[in-house]
Amino acid sequence: MIERLAVIGVGLIGGSLARALRRRGLVGEIVGCGRSEANLARAVELDVIDRYETDPGTAVRGADCVVIAVTLGATGEILARIASAIEATAVVTDVGSAKRCVVDAAASALGSNYRRFVAGHPIAGTEQSGVDASFPELFEGHRVILTPVAETDHTAIESVTCMWEGVDALVTTMDVDHHDEVLAATSHLPHMLAYTLVDCLAAHGDCGEIFEYAAGGFRDFTRIASSSPEMWCDIAIANRSALLAIAARFEAAFRDLQAALADGDEQKMVDRFRRAKQARDAFQAKASQ
Amino acid sequence: MIERLAVIGVGLIGGSLARALRRRGLVGEIVGCGRSEANLARAVELDVIDRYETDPGTAVRGADCVVIAVTLGATGEILARIASAIEATAVVTDVGSAKRCVVDAAASALGSNYRRFVAGHPIAGTEQSGVDASFPELFEGHRVILTPVAETDHTAIESVTCMWEGVDALVTTMDVDHHDEVLAATSHLPHMLAYTLVDCLAAHGDCGEIFEYAAGGFRDFTRIASSSPEMWCDIAIANRSALLAIAARFEAAFRDLQAALADGDEQKMVDRFRRAKQARDAFQAKASQ
Repeated sequence: MIERLAVIGVGLIGGSLARALRRRGLVGEIVGCGRSEANLARAVELDVIDRYETDPGTAVRGADCVVIAVTLGATGEILARIASAIEATAVVTDVGSAKRCVVDAAASALGSNYRRFVAGHPIAGTEQSGVDASFPELFEGHRVILTPVAETDHTAIESVTCMWEGVDALVTTMDVDHHDEVLAATSHLPHMLAYTLVDCLAAHGDCGEIFEYAAGGFRDFTRIASSSPEMWCDIAIANRSALLAIAARFEAAFRDLQAALADGDEQKMVDRFRRAKQARDAFQAKASQ
Repeated sequence: MIERLAVIGVGLIGGSLARALRRRGLVGEIVGCGRSEANLARAVELDVIDRYETDPGTAVRGADCVVIAVTLGATGEILARIASAIEATAVVTDVGSAKRCVVDAAASALGSNYRRFVAGHPIAGTEQSGVDASFPELFEGHRVILTPVAETDHTAIESVTCMWEGVDALVTTMDVDHHDEVLAATSHLPHMLAYTLVDCLAAHGDCGEIFEYAAGGFRDFTRIASSSPEMWCDIAIANRSALLAIAARFEAAFRDLQAALADGDEQKMVDRFRRAKQARDAFQAKASQ
């Protein structure tokens, strides 16, 4: 049970977590904080939060749990602004899609409170944003990856685990840099590829016709290009080094495939497609177990 | 009404067309032909075809409509083998995903029958193959692109249009090379990217874990990598020049994005993501009208 929760950034993720905890009676008071007072007033109106503060330092005072749910680019500044105001027993966590940058910022900003900072990443979301898009079921059955470090307090890890499990998320822990590599591969790179493909086609020729004749695969492939441009730029910048590494590997493999196609090397092409199909089918079989 | 239909290649596409025409009473006798006698016997057992021949030349004799539904790599040989046996009034069509190679092969193989050859491409399919996977509803509401040339007989175009419209497909016509460019962009390139991404990840590190933490976008993105490796190699080879052209454009755009990310050029990244989102959203809005 959280006595007072401070949610910094009451958007899709922060708002959904507040709604989910409240619905289950897992929280006493919820204090919101954010840059847009209109959004905060709306959050009160929707009963997502009880009240709000516009200063992060004021918002976290008296809170036993602080959830930072702002963009990755703003997380460092928030950590610096709340550092001196955090209660000595409060647990602090975040929800960012990249973790190395957040952990490093927390280490340099939080001082003695760093031990009670547990970096987290709920693998959940929609293409919408803002408190109006939030809903209490968002995390149910979804994974939340926590990336504690050697110094992290075990009680703090337990508290954050307990919070997420309380809203029916599946919590696992992972090494910070490993998290960033895995997410670069499975989420950040696919978004970059989808944006690039759609932009590349849209920039050239009769875009309407291209889309009109699109088959199923293309529709699936490009749906993720409807996500927030600002948010995905923020994520890509925050996870730049892991993303550039996997992007380079992808580019080399794609160049290799183009060379095989140019050479008419069907054996090489079929071998690669088969390996991919096997990996994908194995995943599918496992997922449907 | 087709008196006698010859279907060369009784798989997912050929079998589904035969079933659909038969169900609607739009065909008299259906003669199948293919390399696998076991598959042909199965097609008779399933009542997809009435009888079969193993020689394409024999199969097309007496048929007023011939549908070639074999792989693109085998289409040229089939055209050569049926050329002298086609009835003087028979209409011939195909279902291949690339059209320039088929049209050129027909021009050189069919002689005076070339005028009654109408190249076609139904934009429909599943990840399955073989006659057991065929079903009569496959084409309903799906587009079929015909790519007739200047010499093509108008009555032949009408017959093929009528056949596809009879099974509730939406028929449009397109220039041969334009078809190949549009399909390279919307279907063939996305398949190459999905195969490359999955293979690239599978070839490196703990693949199971990569898939385990995969979010929605990645699942959508990689589903198409479950398609038949042999069929997609066949398509890529058949549409090689259009596919290599769009692949090179994609690669250049992707390199450019990587450079922007490496430079931390957020404005450039957001601009590209926004253009892509606008194009995708516009398509979505149009599609749901």
